[in-house]
Amino acid sequence: VTWLELPPDSLFGVANLPYGVFEADGVRRVGVRVGDAVLDLTAVLGDPAFAQPSLNAFMAQGRAKWSDARARITGLLTDRWHRAAVEAALHPLPGVRMHLPFEVADYVDFYASEHHATNVGRLFRPTGEPLTPNWKHMPIGYHGRSGTVVASGTAVTRPLGQRRGEHAPTFGPSARLDFEAEVGYVVGIGSPPGVPVRTSEFADHVFGVFLVNDWSARDIQSWESVPLGPFLAKSFATSVSPWVVPLEALEAARFSPPPRDPEPLPYLTDTDKWGLDLALEVRLNGQVASRPPYAGMYWTPAQMLAHMTVNGARVRTGDFYASGTVSGPEREQRGCLLELSWGGAEPLALPDGSVRGFLEDGDEVTITATAPGAGGTRIGFGEVSGRILPARAGKA
Amino acid sequence: VTWLELPPDSLFGVANLPYGVFEADGVRRVGVRVGDAVLDLTAVLGDPAFAQPSLNAFMAQGRAKWSDARARITGLLTDRWHRAAVEAALHPLPGVRMHLPFEVADYVDFYASEHHATNVGRLFRPTGEPLTPNWKHMPIGYHGRSGTVVASGTAVTRPLGQRRGEHAPTFGPSARLDFEAEVGYVVGIGSPPGVPVRTSEFADHVFGVFLVNDWSARDIQSWESVPLGPFLAKSFATSVSPWVVPLEALEAARFSPPPRDPEPLPYLTDTDKWGLDLALEVRLNGQVASRPPYAGMYWTPAQMLAHMTVNGARVRTGDFYASGTVSGPEREQRGCLLELSWGGAEPLALPDGSVRGFLEDGDEVTITATAPGAGGTRIGFGEVSGRILPARAGKA
Repeated sequence: VTWLELPPDSLFGVANLPYGVFEADGVRRVGVRVGDAVLDLTAVLGDPAFAQPSLNAFMAQGRAKWSDARARITGLLTDRWHRAAVEAALHPLPGVRMHLPFEVADYVDFYASEHHATNVGRLFRPTGEPLTPNWKHMPIGYHGRSGTVVASGTAVTRPLGQRRGEHAPTFGPSARLDFEAEVGYVVGIGSPPGVPVRTSEFADHVFGVFLVNDWSARDIQSWESVPLGPFLAKSFATSVSPWVVPLEALEAARFSPPPRDPEPLPYLTDTDKWGLDLALEVRLNGQVASRPPYAGMYWTPAQMLAHMTVNGARVRTGDFYASGTVSGPEREQRGCLLELSWGGAEPLALPDGSVRGFLEDGDEVTITATAPGAGGTRIGFGEVSGRILPARAGKA
Repeated sequence: VTWLELPPDSLFGVANLPYGVFEADGVRRVGVRVGDAVLDLTAVLGDPAFAQPSLNAFMAQGRAKWSDARARITGLLTDRWHRAAVEAALHPLPGVRMHLPFEVADYVDFYASEHHATNVGRLFRPTGEPLTPNWKHMPIGYHGRSGTVVASGTAVTRPLGQRRGEHAPTFGPSARLDFEAEVGYVVGIGSPPGVPVRTSEFADHVFGVFLVNDWSARDIQSWESVPLGPFLAKSFATSVSPWVVPLEALEAARFSPPPRDPEPLPYLTDTDKWGLDLALEVRLNGQVASRPPYAGMYWTPAQMLAHMTVNGARVRTGDFYASGTVSGPEREQRGCLLELSWGGAEPLALPDGSVRGFLEDGDEVTITATAPGAGGTRIGFGEVSGRILPARAGKA
């Protein structure tokens, strides 16, 4: 039992303890969120890996050390003997600034929701089968841009780019700017070149889970993507939440993924149950726009990691991969405006009466999530948010 | 006039002076190639940026410092006064080991040869137009995997993966393993978020040029690539040459790119002539397999950088981008086996009588290039080479 005086429904009690990088007194270092404060781990644990502006050094220590640190933090928060020392190292959140939690090595974005892929297929290829023939055989993914991954709260400037025109492409601000509500996974322990990571080894490599908004310019995307995939439609910004929830906090959230038909190849077999029962919520200017359920995702993060390395590619500390847009079967569970407004044809009506096909300048998108935690609690992921700024003045 | 006693046709005289990272006595540091030796810049220039295991610190100093260093090195090699000191800092190449020249931030691969894109379009989409409608309006590109970029000489293990099957995909070693002869560009000075790099600013950002072999598994590629582009077909390995030729050494190699029809959008207008007259050569087990000319490439590296940043994406020190396969109009100028063997249908006959559809285990691919240098010289790029190792024992 903790000595912390948190409300019983706190999403950030001892069952959670997510890690992040906070700045106080001009110095960035690693902390753990406790209630509405951040605990300075450099002050209470004395491991130099925490006196860093990213989680990378700590993540590189491996699963046993992750577990050990979590046990020690839990000890500090339950043993009254430590209360004074811990309280002295707690910084109320309003007094700190949160940063990108890790230094990004490679970034891969998957496409793991069957509902999302089916909807997008119907919209982009209305005359064909909605799912491509490979979709149920592998988690489809592609590499994104690491250098434009930004912390939650960073404003996102509407991108300029080429769009399909009647006779020739036109150039200007994207008119179909979108969010994508996703879940991200960061690699703590890399793998050597040539040695695939098996699905059973997922928790030896992946440190934790966070939220991602993979901003997308749909008009740029539909013009540029054939034949080599999305590029500038995605590379202008990808926002991530500041708190990385360690896998150990997600034991109660583990969930059987839906049955796969046809059976995937053996290297993609689920040996452990790595579906996750996360409840996402997307708010647009404070209004609920969608509530995507993560539990129905077709491919698990363990399968994504196994697929990504089956060709011998190594992973490194700081690599992260995202699930792709999380969409459920219902309209109000779709994870992006492209689906929610059906390509703009059926604009989304928000509770306050406002209506959106795609994002307007000034719009603020906030994605949050909760999951079952230990002992019947719920744990929170915090939020990833960003506001759209008008495109820069610029001509083609 | 240099005091160096190099043969007059040396590809590595004072007109070239490419930078690389060499290891001698167990320490990695930056040097410049002079003839068949490497000059230890830490020993002769005393800038701590050279006492680093990558070019990144030096590249981050910017164009004026690049120019200054080149002038100082040229001075050392022309003023006899310095001869003894310089000779003491020269390491014959056989006694050193060359490493990856820079730490890779983001990696983007383009598709800038019209001949290559046309051939690939004919092979992959035999019933449609060979070029997609966007191809002549923008340099098509996608993000590759930074963590699997390897130094020349690193062996490449044949990847395993999924291939299209009659009823269901099959799994196993790629049966259509290929090379791609490309030219790479590394960014020295990054750009701030939201500010595109104009074509006229190319030489303020890009430090230099090198050779790339973008190994490709064509069977994995054709099964996985729709709709999000190539992923595991490319991510197992990308080899780069050890020597980065600075832009200043390439003044005599600058070349007018072919006329573009239709005229591209204004942000892609060529303000300066950044076509490059590089003559590539691909050898397979020592036999000449192809001689791709770079001068005919449709899109220049200045256009690629302008396109990559037009949406506001920043670039960083260590970002590199590659041209895509360099293919000329003639069959013997094609830069990959997919084209040279027409998808395996017309196997390539090498001078020694051997025949290849795709790469076999044990095959060694070496790509070299030369270009016009100052004063009527020719300058060399060195080589990027790699040998294919058999796939690891592995089942699906």
